[in-house]
Amino acid sequence: MKYAEGRLGRVFVIRLEEGDVVPDCIEEFASEKNISIAHVSLLGTLMEGEVIVGPRKTSEIPPRPMDLPIYEAHETIATGVVAPDKDGKPILHIHGALGRSGNTIMGCLRNGVKAWVCCEVILQEILGVDAKRLLDEKTGFTLLNLG
Amino acid sequence: MKYAEGRLGRVFVIRLEEGDVVPDCIEEFASEKNISIAHVSLLGTLMEGEVIVGPRKTSEIPPRPMDLPIYEAHETIATGVVAPDKDGKPILHIHGALGRSGNTIMGCLRNGVKAWVCCEVILQEILGVDAKRLLDEKTGFTLLNLG
Amino acid sequence: MKYAEGRLGRVFVIRLEEGDVVPDCIEEFASEKNISIAHVSLLGTLMEGEVIVGPRKTSEIPPRPMDLPIYEAHETIATGVVAPDKDGKPILHIHGALGRSGNTIMGCLRNGVKAWVCCEVILQEILGVDAKRLLDEKTGFTLLNLG
Repeated sequence: MKYAEGRLGRVFVIRLEEGDVVPDCIEEFASEKNISIAHVSLLGTLMEGEVIVGPRKTSEIPPRPMDLPIYEAHETIATGVVAPDKDGKPILHIHGALGRSGNTIMGCLRNGVKAWVCCEVILQEILGVDAKRLLDEKTGFTLLNLG
Repeated sequence: MKYAEGRLGRVFVIRLEEGDVVPDCIEEFASEKNISIAHVSLLGTLMEGEVIVGPRKTSEIPPRPMDLPIYEAHETIATGVVAPDKDGKPILHIHGALGRSGNTIMGCLRNGVKAWVCCEVILQEILGVDAKRLLDEKTGFTLLNLG
Repeated sequence: MKYAEGRLGRVFVIRLEEGDVVPDCIEEFASEKNISIAHVSLLGTLMEGEVIVGPRKTSEIPPRPMDLPIYEAHETIATGVVAPDKDGKPILHIHGALGRSGNTIMGCLRNGVKAWVCCEVILQEILGVDAKRLLDEKTGFTLLNLG
């Protein structure tokens, strides 16, 4: 376990509008507001795009991801962490549970899903933490490095 | 995307007791404590009531919701945002993943589900944000309006 | 409903490393850092261990839990609350949605699941709250007592 201690900064209440793409729109918002590290909590309805639903084989390194398309509007909760990449660009790592008519797809919202009519986000900025998402050569993942 | 910037206020640690109805009991609590805007994070076991599991057709406006009943006790995580309606009454918009024996129903807890034995909530008040849930004529939803 | 009012303390950004066991590693971290009460928000990939997926019968007291094993790596979001037991040891009550290839298991991570390659946690300390997890004779659960 690696960790860094910080403190809370600004808190943003956000409403996504129809067609806003997650995680892109939140990354752009973070960039615009000079937010480096943040916790993101989302609830709403998402549609389209793809969700990464696990590595094909748990023990295969580097892992090959499984993707599933999202067709119709799905009720969603999602949790994410914003941190900068090596160039300082904010990257949102966000996982969500997307459900429809009693079935639930849980995965990483890396490849873009869109807000439907109604989607709310609470973004809490975290100050005083030195963190970067850097490429891990072995796994091919960008992992959170805490300084 | 619409947004408003605020700051954290009071933090409440809450234990729901058997039979407490979500979202009602949290809305009443917010009213009693003069909480206008808040982030709600819930974990516990819920039962009974109904969950909205998506619009019947993604592209149909106004949308007609699908509901599913919840029978037995379900392990749950849920995320919500409290904001006042046009009359100032606190409304909790909350989505949750409710699972039992390996099946998971993800939806909006609008129609009332009850706490079973064990249910914990962290409610974080957000200050300095002007927000209201107002009727959107086109969709028939009450959407978060950020001033 | 029982409640206690507090305020936010330290915020920790944590990266779990492969093989770190939840909830144990977070309980040890809380102990080391003298954290009494905290909110925990996790996203990442978990594997192995077991998840409690509900009581066998909703109305049977004391309840007998259902457990399911987790085999391969599962994309996950989880929400938890840290509070001390009667001896002051931090106990993390944490529920998570664990998904793989479109199926989702929602449950209580009490019996230990392990971090796979990538797992991030935001831990928010809550100050000024007197809470303890104490045995409830009737149900056999340790419930959050708020003083």
